[in-house]
Amino acid sequence: MNQPYTRLDKDNAAVLLVDHQAGLLSLVRDIDPDKFKNNVLALADLARYFDLPTILTTSFENGPNGPLVPELKQLFPDAPFIPRPGQINAWDNEDFVRAVKATGRKQLIIAGVVTEVCVAFPALSALAEGFEVFVITDASGTFNEITRHSAWDRMSGAGAQLMTWFGAACELHRDWRNDVEGLGALFSNHIPDYRNLINSYTTTSHAR
Amino acid sequence: MNQPYTRLDKDNAAVLLVDHQAGLLSLVRDIDPDKFKNNVLALADLARYFDLPTILTTSFENGPNGPLVPELKQLFPDAPFIPRPGQINAWDNEDFVRAVKATGRKQLIIAGVVTEVCVAFPALSALAEGFEVFVITDASGTFNEITRHSAWDRMSGAGAQLMTWFGAACELHRDWRNDVEGLGALFSNHIPDYRNLINSYTTTSHAR
Amino acid sequence: MNQPYTRLDKDNAAVLLVDHQAGLLSLVRDIDPDKFKNNVLALADLARYFDLPTILTTSFENGPNGPLVPELKQLFPDAPFIPRPGQINAWDNEDFVRAVKATGRKQLIIAGVVTEVCVAFPALSALAEGFEVFVITDASGTFNEITRHSAWDRMSGAGAQLMTWFGAACELHRDWRNDVEGLGALFSNHIPDYRNLINSYTTTSHAR
Amino acid sequence: MNQPYTRLDKDNAAVLLVDHQAGLLSLVRDIDPDKFKNNVLALADLARYFDLPTILTTSFENGPNGPLVPELKQLFPDAPFIPRPGQINAWDNEDFVRAVKATGRKQLIIAGVVTEVCVAFPALSALAEGFEVFVITDASGTFNEITRHSAWDRMSGAGAQLMTWFGAACELHRDWRNDVEGLGALFSNHIPDYRNLINSYTTTSHAR
Amino acid sequence: MNQPYTRLDKDNAAVLLVDHQAGLLSLVRDIDPDKFKNNVLALADLARYFDLPTILTTSFENGPNGPLVPELKQLFPDAPFIPRPGQINAWDNEDFVRAVKATGRKQLIIAGVVTEVCVAFPALSALAEGFEVFVITDASGTFNEITRHSAWDRMSGAGAQLMTWFGAACELHRDWRNDVEGLGALFSNHIPDYRNLINSYTTTSHAR
Amino acid sequence: MNQPYTRLDKDNAAVLLVDHQAGLLSLVRDIDPDKFKNNVLALADLARYFDLPTILTTSFENGPNGPLVPELKQLFPDAPFIPRPGQINAWDNEDFVRAVKATGRKQLIIAGVVTEVCVAFPALSALAEGFEVFVITDASGTFNEITRHSAWDRMSGAGAQLMTWFGAACELHRDWRNDVEGLGALFSNHIPDYRNLINSYTTTSHAR
Amino acid sequence: MNQPYTRLDKDNAAVLLVDHQAGLLSLVRDIDPDKFKNNVLALADLARYFDLPTILTTSFENGPNGPLVPELKQLFPDAPFIPRPGQINAWDNEDFVRAVKATGRKQLIIAGVVTEVCVAFPALSALAEGFEVFVITDASGTFNEITRHSAWDRMSGAGAQLMTWFGAACELHRDWRNDVEGLGALFSNHIPDYRNLINSYTTTSHAR
Amino acid sequence: MNQPYTRLDKDNAAVLLVDHQAGLLSLVRDIDPDKFKNNVLALADLARYFDLPTILTTSFENGPNGPLVPELKQLFPDAPFIPRPGQINAWDNEDFVRAVKATGRKQLIIAGVVTEVCVAFPALSALAEGFEVFVITDASGTFNEITRHSAWDRMSGAGAQLMTWFGAACELHRDWRNDVEGLGALFSNHIPDYRNLINSYTTTSHAR
Repeated sequence: MNQPYTRLDKDNAAVLLVDHQAGLLSLVRDIDPDKFKNNVLALADLARYFDLPTILTTSFENGPNGPLVPELKQLFPDAPFIPRPGQINAWDNEDFVRAVKATGRKQLIIAGVVTEVCVAFPALSALAEGFEVFVITDASGTFNEITRHSAWDRMSGAGAQLMTWFGAACELHRDWRNDVEGLGALFSNHIPDYRNLINSYTTTSHAR
Repeated sequence: MNQPYTRLDKDNAAVLLVDHQAGLLSLVRDIDPDKFKNNVLALADLARYFDLPTILTTSFENGPNGPLVPELKQLFPDAPFIPRPGQINAWDNEDFVRAVKATGRKQLIIAGVVTEVCVAFPALSALAEGFEVFVITDASGTFNEITRHSAWDRMSGAGAQLMTWFGAACELHRDWRNDVEGLGALFSNHIPDYRNLINSYTTTSHAR
Repeated sequence: MNQPYTRLDKDNAAVLLVDHQAGLLSLVRDIDPDKFKNNVLALADLARYFDLPTILTTSFENGPNGPLVPELKQLFPDAPFIPRPGQINAWDNEDFVRAVKATGRKQLIIAGVVTEVCVAFPALSALAEGFEVFVITDASGTFNEITRHSAWDRMSGAGAQLMTWFGAACELHRDWRNDVEGLGALFSNHIPDYRNLINSYTTTSHAR
Repeated sequence: MNQPYTRLDKDNAAVLLVDHQAGLLSLVRDIDPDKFKNNVLALADLARYFDLPTILTTSFENGPNGPLVPELKQLFPDAPFIPRPGQINAWDNEDFVRAVKATGRKQLIIAGVVTEVCVAFPALSALAEGFEVFVITDASGTFNEITRHSAWDRMSGAGAQLMTWFGAACELHRDWRNDVEGLGALFSNHIPDYRNLINSYTTTSHAR
Repeated sequence: MNQPYTRLDKDNAAVLLVDHQAGLLSLVRDIDPDKFKNNVLALADLARYFDLPTILTTSFENGPNGPLVPELKQLFPDAPFIPRPGQINAWDNEDFVRAVKATGRKQLIIAGVVTEVCVAFPALSALAEGFEVFVITDASGTFNEITRHSAWDRMSGAGAQLMTWFGAACELHRDWRNDVEGLGALFSNHIPDYRNLINSYTTTSHAR
Repeated sequence: MNQPYTRLDKDNAAVLLVDHQAGLLSLVRDIDPDKFKNNVLALADLARYFDLPTILTTSFENGPNGPLVPELKQLFPDAPFIPRPGQINAWDNEDFVRAVKATGRKQLIIAGVVTEVCVAFPALSALAEGFEVFVITDASGTFNEITRHSAWDRMSGAGAQLMTWFGAACELHRDWRNDVEGLGALFSNHIPDYRNLINSYTTTSHAR
Repeated sequence: MNQPYTRLDKDNAAVLLVDHQAGLLSLVRDIDPDKFKNNVLALADLARYFDLPTILTTSFENGPNGPLVPELKQLFPDAPFIPRPGQINAWDNEDFVRAVKATGRKQLIIAGVVTEVCVAFPALSALAEGFEVFVITDASGTFNEITRHSAWDRMSGAGAQLMTWFGAACELHRDWRNDVEGLGALFSNHIPDYRNLINSYTTTSHAR
Repeated sequence: MNQPYTRLDKDNAAVLLVDHQAGLLSLVRDIDPDKFKNNVLALADLARYFDLPTILTTSFENGPNGPLVPELKQLFPDAPFIPRPGQINAWDNEDFVRAVKATGRKQLIIAGVVTEVCVAFPALSALAEGFEVFVITDASGTFNEITRHSAWDRMSGAGAQLMTWFGAACELHRDWRNDVEGLGALFSNHIPDYRNLINSYTTTSHAR
């Protein structure tokens, strides 16, 4: 009756970044812009850190929606990039689905703008095709809390797991003994409180 | 175990606007009045844009509940309009159900005032009769967040999908190549941030 | 898979008011005291208006928990009143369960203080015995939003329906033609916005 | 010791609209976009209704700040329009000050984006030159509540009066006997609750 | 440099209730309706308890603004009641000012709807004429927090003292030995937490 | 279809306190620090009061995560304490699981920092192995409400029951006749409102 | 024109704790009870730490207002304790004023319940008599934010300085070289974040 | 009577950064950490951009307060850095005051942690010595909104001007013609919405 525990596996997961475009970002008002920018870049860094296949897609980059956030383009120079000619649900775009399936991964980590459309539509489609879907809620933005919670309810009801970038990173990493430096740096770069802990600790322990 | 992906289809959807009356609107305090008015009119424009069969109903227009919001009457001059003589659940009114069934549609997009009564009751009844129900949460208003979330929980638990007018519009449209101008205008009229994007884009691209 | 539509029926419903005691009310901080007092009394008026069998129970009235709110005692002078000698879950008290079963009703409308204990425990027990449970969320109070939403999640997951006093009143009434004056007065007494609508309407229509 | 009562006078007031530009509006996050758009247009309608001399100014319309909101251009086709070549404080622009002084008015109603810069700077400069300054707080937007309240504190401390578009309209009008229709229409267009009152009243009084 | 301590004196204070009308109340969205109704009636009860001269005034009772809240009319059957024919600032109405001056009081306790207009305008005018003005902030309502705080800033800057009904009652009473029963009853009727304290105390002390 | 009522049983429950470390606590920003500290200590006191087997675990105590909160160490001097060498999910640590299983308990009460990782991961793992899991939501902290609600959704969907320390204490105690003094003291120490009730009651009843 | 910098001086300051009574505390709803209890006790500890003359007063301890919080009585066994027979403004009680003047101090640190009455009234009276008044805002509680901010505005306008217990402690201490241990312990006991810093620091520095 | 317009002048302003230390930052809970980190670094970048003399100071870097945020040390390698041996008010430290006076500047831009102590104390002292003080409110953090607003009230009442880093940058710059690139880059780095505007604009204008 309950959802089984489907655990993120770095050898079986891919990341889909949907429509993080400069214009569309001005629609995001359920998360503060400083925090949202940080969350999206943290997810991107995480995808790189774990070497997860990553797919970028946009909707009408040359119109008012604006270009893909340049940092994302720079972080994934070789990733499949599918500028959709019109499909609102990225999953309706054959190139996009082909790219997803080409990764051979069954776990899809999805984030995008706006949550109830660019995230929810492909998430629901992927679930319908048997993928395991993990929505990164804090790297997905939308108009307000009503739209956010409506979208969450719909995706969760269909079997998507709601996670955040930090939770996903921890679940992918499994064990700090795999590597402390790299993940620690990632956390330090994206969690000011964590950076402060590290700075205080380092200073104190060096002071001996 | 999970909800399957039931996707809005413009050839199979109808819109039910329940009790958006001038008096009852003063009860709505979970959404700011400027935003709520905008959301309701956006949903109405959406219904017209996609040529969805639309049904209007009211409760005691001649009493303190007040008249149907005039803009809705003007937008749907030929739509079935069922002033209910007393039934609180619109689905208890035979004329209303008959009008719904006459559309031949199986997907019902419902919004109204107040959420836990005028929306939830017919939503639950329609679900019980096998309709697919999509509640437009941001065009439905109520007293406060406790009443809102109680109503959402009840409807979602019964199988209703919680959507917003923007998400519904996007799911109905499927592909921008079907039409850019019309839907773009609808978004521009109801999303100030989107209008700004278009204005900035147009100015810049014309400036070349 | 979804919850079926279980509709409140005035011939099959009973009301359980659990531990609305003067001392315990000072623990309620998730709803403003003016509003909470109003909601509890509205639920009580509703129970009387629909002649629903009503059961009162308290925990340690003579200690710091304080006496039952006097208005409730006055409104239900002949209702079963079960001061529990120690059981925290009212359903663990045989007199209470006996009183519930004596009503012959299968639908239980429950409210109390605090939500996650005095409401949730008997609600879960009653569900386990096959009763249909309707929690009146806005006449149930607790420490804060974390305790509230944790309790809602637990009760909803077990099959309880989350409603509010206004939604319950509307679902019980079914049709305004059954009576306008009485229910209108109840709403006017407990919803200031509604009272204003009636006052404005009456003045204007009498002014002709 | 206290501020004297300086009352807005429609024969002595002018309106300054500073940098309401499509791009800059995306920086405004202390007021919801639907409400903010409505407030700015209400202020503009008010300026026209009372025939107040109105001055428009922008900063870098051809760059990322974007064009002046087109509705404002359309509402004031003949108003002085000063696109500033670089001055951040509009009062540092001689053309702007000359236009202000050409109105012969001593009371300046100021609104703009963002509050702590485009509004506060000319407000402080105008106060320093002896003008009476009325800041329309709800037609001025900025990043967040910290920036808003810092700006309010600075302007209020310097002698500016903080008002809103509705308060300004009422103070300018003085007496409804001057005109009911026009101002009533303005309020009906910009205050949904007021529009509902009028619709309910009209329906009821016509129903006699 | 600082405001001197001007203390409310029951022999020198009058109460002005401005435009608490059924229609206008639907505009009040900065205070919850249950609480606001309670605060206004508490202020009215306070005026009667201390036998303060009280003046009622309204704006267009026969139009959409709606009738004066009936409870106020009933509480003050013999009070001067000035339905203003058009003046927005009650102080612009000669009958109103005459009624105020006829009381012979120098301290004016003012509350009304909406704060930035119906309260602020007469408050500023009265201050300009040398009255001591006490605004009852929690019995005055308006659209939102921006309008509220703008109005407070303007009134406070002009020398008005911001108080609440409870603070005013306490300052007027001075000493509980003047009377415990009456004021206690007033507090019990309007402060649920206080009523609970009394109920618990009475029960416990009687139980000995 | 619904969750059955699984009731906490003091003879079948164990408590897992995961990573309440001085450094990690600075990451907790969804609950105020004063309240959070109180909730964690209340849960600890509860574990001792009911003599529940309790297991402590930490992650990298000697690094920036900081030491286990000293009060916890002092309260459970003899409890199994598993400093994990690297496993993020405590359930991945064999010593931890062995300690859990050694208790012979089937009901696991879990709290920790941060909710979506240190609580959710072992909760999901334990559910997958057939344990009954009770998450103490108010003794578990995380970055913000988005991370909190995402974690709750995931855990609740997998069958965890969301409870709070007060609800858990009440469900474990069952009947006040088992002991009034001890649990009363625990509540008095951790619920200021409750302490006030007791102080008022004691004073009044002693005054006879 | 501006307030001069009046700096708290431990040799010239006294502390007045007004009506922190068990019953009245249930009226405090603008600060969470856990935090409020902590703030009040922190202020008390501060008074003892700096050996400031401290005066306690209550209103009707034997009635529903309830007894003085026992911790305060225990902390100041020898302090003047003035149970007022009826005066609401403590400054109207001759014993209280005499006790204040007997301290010989000119700086009064005041906190109490509720802010707009028990704090504001004596604060305004003391200012009128030439004392320097420092209101400890976070150890003073009231019904809600409207009552709080109204009281702050009135007191600040009359020349009171708004401080918090932490700010007062720091201003009184002047220099950590006067004593690190004692004040550090006080902060550690009342600021969980600070305690965590100390615990982490101590652990790390001892680990060398 | 009002504050005159004292305008920031890049040739007369200095920046004081007080106690932005890794440990103390964990006390800041009135601004989200992502945003606060950004604001502090924006202020630092601003100080460098305008070549303002900048002074750094800390309190007990080697204890639990933790080291100065390393980014600040790196940005100002040659700035006076005064680690205070104990003085809480930086102005009580002679080296600090000497460094301030050595700049020859009369306008002091101050930010720090926590607002009511590390910012307010030197701000009040500097005002008392005739400096013009500009508090950067959004680069100063503290425990909560009560402490923040108490501190603001005290500083503003003493004549400090409350500004934000963006407002300060704009007032210092005066005219975009002085330089577009540099300040534009600074804004782009610290205001995600602004960066998006620039990215959209650049893409569109290059696309011609």
